[in-house]
Amino acid sequence: MFVREMSNEECRGLLARLGFGRLATVNQNQPYIVPIYFGYRDEHLYGFTTFGRKVEWMRANPLASVEVDEVVSHFHWSSVVVLGLYQELPDTPRYRDLRLEAQLLLEKKALWWQTAYAVNQARGGSYPVDALFYRIRINEITGRKAMPDTVESSVGLSSAARPAREE
Amino acid sequence: MFVREMSNEECRGLLARLGFGRLATVNQNQPYIVPIYFGYRDEHLYGFTTFGRKVEWMRANPLASVEVDEVVSHFHWSSVVVLGLYQELPDTPRYRDLRLEAQLLLEKKALWWQTAYAVNQARGGSYPVDALFYRIRINEITGRKAMPDTVESSVGLSSAARPAREE
Repeated sequence: MFVREMSNEECRGLLARLGFGRLATVNQNQPYIVPIYFGYRDEHLYGFTTFGRKVEWMRANPLASVEVDEVVSHFHWSSVVVLGLYQELPDTPRYRDLRLEAQLLLEKKALWWQTAYAVNQARGGSYPVDALFYRIRINEITGRKAMPDTVESSVGLSSAARPAREE
Repeated sequence: MFVREMSNEECRGLLARLGFGRLATVNQNQPYIVPIYFGYRDEHLYGFTTFGRKVEWMRANPLASVEVDEVVSHFHWSSVVVLGLYQELPDTPRYRDLRLEAQLLLEKKALWWQTAYAVNQARGGSYPVDALFYRIRINEITGRKAMPDTVESSVGLSSAARPAREE
């Protein structure tokens, strides 16, 4: 297996294509990770969520991190890490265009609203009272890509080392 | 889709079964996420890595978070989040038994050592000079599980909504 750094363009290509990853937030030096759906354009990741621990923490400390990865097999994967800044997009005239952009980007992902909705129902809440749009401004982006070497390529064809995800 | 909290036993069952997730670390309120392989037993997650940003940050601030998830389809997934404390397992007589336990747990995961090795090679390093064992003590563990409702179950059988991961 060879591992190499991904170019900026490769990193952004993965963000645009996947739209699913993990978000880390921090409170008093304690990190916390949750899975998220997001839409990507230019310098921002756009998301939709209900109010909870991650929003509470990012309101107090807007520094955030998002990681996405694509695993074809143990020898063949890509992982991109974003360091960024949280910004809420409230339901006011000033943010109308940005909220619309967030919604248009997220609508490319099937059922993007449903997780926030269902989690809220599990808490006994109602939709969409405490649902909100937000975005993460990208401050730093890095990525690594692993490719199989020639021996692993042949091993990878056997059933013993079949891809972790087959689509 | 229904979302519910997972029991402590269900959360630990997922940690034991998956052995792959994401680790978040923090430096000066900035979180950082990386994918990791780990072994789980009792109150600890055991890992193996080469020296880099995440180790540097956890040496300065041992508070960490690990997330694992299993996605069968958009409507059917589980996600577990651990908040915990980093502890390094140095190559000294005092830590010999713990390092052996870490190695035995990790050996159940095929090729667990290879990612650390390959990333190190990409940096021009040599194995195993700066490779190290560590563990995360579990302080808090929570999980959520989503299940399809009756309508989604039937939709889930169509090709339009096939599982994101088929194995």
